[in-house]
Amino acid sequence: MTRTSSLIKRWRHEYLKKHVYLDYGATTPVDPEVLKSMQEFFTKNFGNPSSVHTYGLKAQDAIEQSRKHVASCINASADEIIFTSGGTEADNLGIKGIALQHQADVGTNGPHIITSSIEHPAVLETCKYLEKQGFVVTYLPVNADGIINPKQLQETITNQTFLVSIMAANNEIGTIQPLKEIGAITHKNNILFHTDAVQAIGKIPIDVQKMHIDLLSLSSHKIYGPKGIGALFVRKGVPLTPLFHGGGHEQGKRSSTLNTPGIIALGKACELAKKRMKTDVSLMTKLRDQLIKNVLEIEETYLNGHSTKRLANNAHFRFTAVEGESIHLMLDNAGIAAATGSACSSKKLKPSHVLLALGLTPEESHGSIRFSLGRMSTKEDITYVIETLPGIIQTLRDMSPLWKNK
Amino acid sequence: MTRTSSLIKRWRHEYLKKHVYLDYGATTPVDPEVLKSMQEFFTKNFGNPSSVHTYGLKAQDAIEQSRKHVASCINASADEIIFTSGGTEADNLGIKGIALQHQADVGTNGPHIITSSIEHPAVLETCKYLEKQGFVVTYLPVNADGIINPKQLQETITNQTFLVSIMAANNEIGTIQPLKEIGAITHKNNILFHTDAVQAIGKIPIDVQKMHIDLLSLSSHKIYGPKGIGALFVRKGVPLTPLFHGGGHEQGKRSSTLNTPGIIALGKACELAKKRMKTDVSLMTKLRDQLIKNVLEIEETYLNGHSTKRLANNAHFRFTAVEGESIHLMLDNAGIAAATGSACSSKKLKPSHVLLALGLTPEESHGSIRFSLGRMSTKEDITYVIETLPGIIQTLRDMSPLWKNK
Repeated sequence: MTRTSSLIKRWRHEYLKKHVYLDYGATTPVDPEVLKSMQEFFTKNFGNPSSVHTYGLKAQDAIEQSRKHVASCINASADEIIFTSGGTEADNLGIKGIALQHQADVGTNGPHIITSSIEHPAVLETCKYLEKQGFVVTYLPVNADGIINPKQLQETITNQTFLVSIMAANNEIGTIQPLKEIGAITHKNNILFHTDAVQAIGKIPIDVQKMHIDLLSLSSHKIYGPKGIGALFVRKGVPLTPLFHGGGHEQGKRSSTLNTPGIIALGKACELAKKRMKTDVSLMTKLRDQLIKNVLEIEETYLNGHSTKRLANNAHFRFTAVEGESIHLMLDNAGIAAATGSACSSKKLKPSHVLLALGLTPEESHGSIRFSLGRMSTKEDITYVIETLPGIIQTLRDMSPLWKNK
Repeated sequence: MTRTSSLIKRWRHEYLKKHVYLDYGATTPVDPEVLKSMQEFFTKNFGNPSSVHTYGLKAQDAIEQSRKHVASCINASADEIIFTSGGTEADNLGIKGIALQHQADVGTNGPHIITSSIEHPAVLETCKYLEKQGFVVTYLPVNADGIINPKQLQETITNQTFLVSIMAANNEIGTIQPLKEIGAITHKNNILFHTDAVQAIGKIPIDVQKMHIDLLSLSSHKIYGPKGIGALFVRKGVPLTPLFHGGGHEQGKRSSTLNTPGIIALGKACELAKKRMKTDVSLMTKLRDQLIKNVLEIEETYLNGHSTKRLANNAHFRFTAVEGESIHLMLDNAGIAAATGSACSSKKLKPSHVLLALGLTPEESHGSIRFSLGRMSTKEDITYVIETLPGIIQTLRDMSPLWKNK
């Protein structure tokens, strides 16, 4: 057993105990190696990286190493990485930062953004805000599997289009978008391409050169790093209006004292994501496929999203005539953490915009639940779900008038 | 010896060794109690606080406890606290968030903000950005001690004034502003009052009720918490346009997955700041006064800022005919970490805008250095500086043509 595997095993033993955590898409625990990497920056090397004394310089050096790891994970250069407080800030900075460069055209030329209808709220709500500011936004539809049509993207581009923002993989249903095709189109049309890669990093290969990506958002806490840190890749030469004005950090693109421990952790998380992708994906695919196979044996149960073009860790089901919220609650009582919709909107009772975009009815959307696997997942986790879930569905259907009156 | 004191002593022994750190104004190490409080949220209680399963709810509960500690530190209500990534974001959100509510008046009525000429760059640069967007900004001058004139503030208010942003205490020279008088004026005139209290928390009592403060920025890493977390107090009923759009966290005012470990740490740091203020201030004042007394014995040496209306931890000196950068470098070689200007701009070679605003010449500004003390400071630290600094100044003056040609 490698040192890494043994650390993860020990972590499981210590922290998960008998719980089954299958909500890695909402957030991940911090990998023991990541946790170790950041600790000294709370205590020993605590200096402000902007200070020019020994304490500051040590922090600064470590940050620049970390920047290289983040860049390497997506085949970018270190000086193209801007550290942010997370994926939401990265999305907002990437989209608003570019949009504000076109602010002068508002009211005359109607500067135009193209995105998809199944983006994360950090992208969708940002676009809706910009619409109120006079920008024109097209929300591309997706097919029943959740994939946009590149031909339709090409046809939607106008002379006013300056930005396309399409996520790499969806946070709810795990569908992977045709990034290379999208990048080829934006590149040919001389339009910037932003992608929210928060869910994709560490699960599918991302290459900003080959895919012609100009801006990319990533988040630490989805890849076994801590919460509160993320990054935006901005291709060299792409001008960006900052969201935070101040001391001029991060090439003036994001003022604020750099979060040294968070940045070091993100660097280590990216390093591990790259190094472990094959191992992690292989483990998750095997377990996920076993889960899908068994769960689909439950009567009138369906898989949401594409059958193969999906993240290795994602299994998203819908069950006729039951409420996802009720399944979720009963799973939690049984010690299984899953999700209805994304954690970002799971406290809202509105049906998921992603599921509706697939063409599902509000009832079908409400009958859905997501299991998302991770680096720490085991065969025992999946076996327990397979043993537990059919009984929960049966109990709920026994109580459901919809089921009885079918 | 209390448990707390013994923890701090052990920390000093382990991490500072023979170094003398006197740059607590730039950043502080994480207090051992704060570090301990956050650890379980990286590993055991790692759930996304927006998730509704057991993991999420545990994180959410802890966050709400933390919010109470932050609120209690400034006599606010928990639901008036919005967690941010730090002081810079809090300043940007506080000022732009209010300004954007008045965006419609730009171009017709010239909506008006009043600030001071010695604010932190996070406030100053935000105001300069807003000026470019059509807002009108007045930068109040300060007297030779760095204090604004409340009478002048009153006279500067127009019918268009909607916001006054004046810092609680200055980050470079430590001068404390007459917050209660400012708050009385803004309150009487029905104008919002924002204060950057990043340097003030834990050093002077702040009461948002008595001082009529409507918005207040604070930062964790200046009060022995980790970097990457801060908060904005927004008085109930004050509408705010968010900088981040997305999942609708923090009452829709700051979307983004909540940084649980950071938030727990900030809560503990605020709890300690309140609990320890008397002890900390008493220690720092005693040591700081001893430092000032001895350093001023060096020929042609002056204290910048007010003699008494200053933070307990701040000692800011200028030395005729020497460069602050050179003093800083020689101190660092001797194992003493101090600062020229603020860490936020210490890599720039421009003279400090704060010192120029006091009426100092660029040469005098360049000859200045800041020592900032903290909870971990000791008599030995100060004794070592007192023994070391006169020789450094002498060496530099011996090489200085300005000194010889005086």
